[in-house]
Amino acid sequence: MKHTISVMVENKFGVLARVAGLFSGRGYNIESLCVAPMMDPSVSVMTIVTQGDDRVIEQVTKQLNKLIDVIKVIDVTESDYIDRELMLVRVSAEREKRDEIMRVAQIFKSRVVDVGPKTLTLEVTGTDDKLDAVLRILRPLGIRELVRSGKVAMLRADPRK
Amino acid sequence: MKHTISVMVENKFGVLARVAGLFSGRGYNIESLCVAPMMDPSVSVMTIVTQGDDRVIEQVTKQLNKLIDVIKVIDVTESDYIDRELMLVRVSAEREKRDEIMRVAQIFKSRVVDVGPKTLTLEVTGTDDKLDAVLRILRPLGIRELVRSGKVAMLRADPRK
Repeated sequence: MKHTISVMVENKFGVLARVAGLFSGRGYNIESLCVAPMMDPSVSVMTIVTQGDDRVIEQVTKQLNKLIDVIKVIDVTESDYIDRELMLVRVSAEREKRDEIMRVAQIFKSRVVDVGPKTLTLEVTGTDDKLDAVLRILRPLGIRELVRSGKVAMLRADPRK
Repeated sequence: MKHTISVMVENKFGVLARVAGLFSGRGYNIESLCVAPMMDPSVSVMTIVTQGDDRVIEQVTKQLNKLIDVIKVIDVTESDYIDRELMLVRVSAEREKRDEIMRVAQIFKSRVVDVGPKTLTLEVTGTDDKLDAVLRILRPLGIRELVRSGKVAMLRADPRK
């Protein structure tokens, strides 16, 4: 099963290497990861997507918790959470295809962020399912370049407070 | 100087740990990093933001190029490039503050993605300067939670082709 794990860490030198090493040392591939500082730049939040047996993922999160510089670990997968991902995608856009691409952009509320003589580049955000759907539609037009952020995730607000 | 480095890698087990280790082994902190698969899931693209002396960053990119499983390294910083970042930010939103927050959301073309009894959560995308500006405006209202993806970057389309 796919797990999405949110890890708050001290923004210290070598933390990412230690966290990534903990996964690879156990034979776990990280499917996507993003890490960036919070308001207080001494603290960063990582969002990690990995695939694995529930019991082993539980062990990994326990090990993460034991790492120095790790403040908090939440496997959000089993709770109610919001997740979003960002991608930049450059598609072939000969003159006669531009209208079609602009239509797709509009439907998915994406923005054109770069225009070349024969390409258009879109910024798209949404759940990973939405991003996959956009890519399926754009694929026949010719995808030239693609970069995705990986998921960021946050637990939903507690309805009681 | 801040550098933004785009690294295309084989999506193999342990690559992230090796790349992160290369930075930490040289005393370089990674400010933000995101990595996710491309259309072909056997290939991933990482975007790394780091701060350092130009000459040393050049050495690091050379070392990255020598790593097995690394396909291509581009320090986009000195070229013309597009970069975007995504954040989810949860702010305190007592009834009397909701209008103000919705106004900020509208100005920055951000979307409300979660509503709690006393909070609103916005999804904002843009350059890191834009995200910092949104945070400065929201800060006095009370930021409860924040998660950022870190930059994704892509060279601008070549105007000649």
